[in-house]
Amino acid sequence: MPYPHGMRATSNQKSRSRRPTELGLLEQIRAGASRTRNPGLRLGIGDDCALLRLRQGEEMAVTTDLSIDARHFRLAWHPPQAIGHRTLARGLSDLAAMGARPIAAFLSLGLPREFVQNAKGRKPRWVERFLEGFFSLAAAYQTPLAGGDMAESPIAAADIVLAGAVRRGKALLRSGARASDLLYVTGQLGGAAAGLARLAQWASGQRQAHLYLNPSGGLRIPARLQSILQPHLYPQPRIAQGLWLASRSRATAAIDVSDGLSTDLAHLCEESGVAAELDAAALPIHPAATLSQALHGGEDYELLFTAPASANIPRTIGSVPVTRIGRIVRRRSAKPLIVLITNHGTQPLEPQGWQHFS
Amino acid sequence: MPYPHGMRATSNQKSRSRRPTELGLLEQIRAGASRTRNPGLRLGIGDDCALLRLRQGEEMAVTTDLSIDARHFRLAWHPPQAIGHRTLARGLSDLAAMGARPIAAFLSLGLPREFVQNAKGRKPRWVERFLEGFFSLAAAYQTPLAGGDMAESPIAAADIVLAGAVRRGKALLRSGARASDLLYVTGQLGGAAAGLARLAQWASGQRQAHLYLNPSGGLRIPARLQSILQPHLYPQPRIAQGLWLASRSRATAAIDVSDGLSTDLAHLCEESGVAAELDAAALPIHPAATLSQALHGGEDYELLFTAPASANIPRTIGSVPVTRIGRIVRRRSAKPLIVLITNHGTQPLEPQGWQHFS
Repeated sequence: MPYPHGMRATSNQKSRSRRPTELGLLEQIRAGASRTRNPGLRLGIGDDCALLRLRQGEEMAVTTDLSIDARHFRLAWHPPQAIGHRTLARGLSDLAAMGARPIAAFLSLGLPREFVQNAKGRKPRWVERFLEGFFSLAAAYQTPLAGGDMAESPIAAADIVLAGAVRRGKALLRSGARASDLLYVTGQLGGAAAGLARLAQWASGQRQAHLYLNPSGGLRIPARLQSILQPHLYPQPRIAQGLWLASRSRATAAIDVSDGLSTDLAHLCEESGVAAELDAAALPIHPAATLSQALHGGEDYELLFTAPASANIPRTIGSVPVTRIGRIVRRRSAKPLIVLITNHGTQPLEPQGWQHFS
Repeated sequence: MPYPHGMRATSNQKSRSRRPTELGLLEQIRAGASRTRNPGLRLGIGDDCALLRLRQGEEMAVTTDLSIDARHFRLAWHPPQAIGHRTLARGLSDLAAMGARPIAAFLSLGLPREFVQNAKGRKPRWVERFLEGFFSLAAAYQTPLAGGDMAESPIAAADIVLAGAVRRGKALLRSGARASDLLYVTGQLGGAAAGLARLAQWASGQRQAHLYLNPSGGLRIPARLQSILQPHLYPQPRIAQGLWLASRSRATAAIDVSDGLSTDLAHLCEESGVAAELDAAALPIHPAATLSQALHGGEDYELLFTAPASANIPRTIGSVPVTRIGRIVRRRSAKPLIVLITNHGTQPLEPQGWQHFS
């Protein structure tokens, strides 16, 4: 493994028949990986395993997320840099939700051959642009790439693994919410869904076929759309906020809003054996988003968390706003898991976020 | 992540419109995962991350391996149980090569929809048989499934992550071999390649098309082939041998024979900055294998390791034979990295094992 696999192959080819493009990829991955350091990573790419160390009194948080073309991203819509960024952001966001500090990432990539090889050396390869987005976010969060694997695949797929450290017994779990806790969320909701809707609308007006013939590319997104697409293409994992909540607050439970508020809140309620009331008027809806996008959109990668009313949660954590959006209540079998309270009364809120095999 | 993803979806569906087949899969994964325990796993499936603990003075070894249909296995040839077994065995073997004890596994699966859903409830689903093979090996090596992800995919792909523990500074690295060390291998070589060749020969005589119409299946392999196919279909990772070598021997370097002896020995030499001489007559060739299969076949998952001549390496470790197959020598720029010594003289040995993007 640890790129040993992907890399072994390449170093073989070096000794047999040198293939510059693949050698270049190996070197680029190793160079990109070595630009970011973390004291917890003792041995990175190049052996059968990577070796990671914890500080005294810590335990390790590990998460994996699989992204597949046409399910989690679209080669025809997304710039390769954004796919690389989002792949890593998904994993970092899971660490954030536990209150863990990142130590290292592992990336397994399945790619069609033409996405790895240069088309006559003219344009950067798709995979190089993917890695550009990946390594840029990795550097921002001190998360070196410590290994992974690479294989030829008829479709593009990326599996990301993150390892992080958290004080023993101090991880924020989904299962810790208690009746009468208040419910909070960081940042704004619905921005990613609004961006995705705008991207889909714009892309459907373009000639898309050329991308599949020109894997170095992706559509060129006009500058006027950059701002509205930002939350969708380049979400920021809330690592600092998770660390603060786990170490300096009395937060009782947390989850990241990856599948959508309605769905992720349902997970938190199910794991904690509680129910929740959401105040529609309190939701920090992204200016470009609808209520429905804020409730069900997903991929905002904000933190949804609970804390006792006496916990004194600040209005911002690390310059990111924190909003109280509801409360945890006792679960009653005849009652809905989540209700939405609006000016017009109270209604059950069904989870309508991201579904696998849907 | 940790199945949360796969699982979240399923638990949603429970609250919306119950889908028995997917609910069954969730329950089967959780049940299978909970059958195996490991004291290092503090929190498994069900939250954003799993939580793992090390003992005092240990560090964590992490490895990932990506397997894709038609590249690493063939749905048309391999029983689903064998694909599940081999997926986990690849990861465990990387831990073995470092001398690490397993703590937990993470599995990301991309599968076509029809591989997950029951065809009228008649036959076990493909994924159930895959998990049967996976969980059976997991139980044998005290390696609980701690998380992962699942997504619909047009092709079958499995990414395996293993986390294990090793005494700080005691991991067996590829880079520790020194000139005058002796070279050893566990078990026999070429058995997996011989089995694969036999499987391919047999499968090419069958009508294969039905498999793709009947994803619960795979070809039914006749009993007379079971024995010859065993090393290919159900390889055993050398965990006990790796643990012994790291803790009780003076082994200087190790790697697992996953890509083939010629290729993996080249990696070891490159990482250690040394060269090697192999004694053809000493190689423990599997009775069904050719010399070429033993040298280049791959997927034997035996341990290739080095130790000083004075190290007193036993003939067996945990009932698995250990054979001295050559020696480490100084690297000279004009000389080949590896030479094979036969009765007819000495010849350069080029790495001809597994290639990615080949």
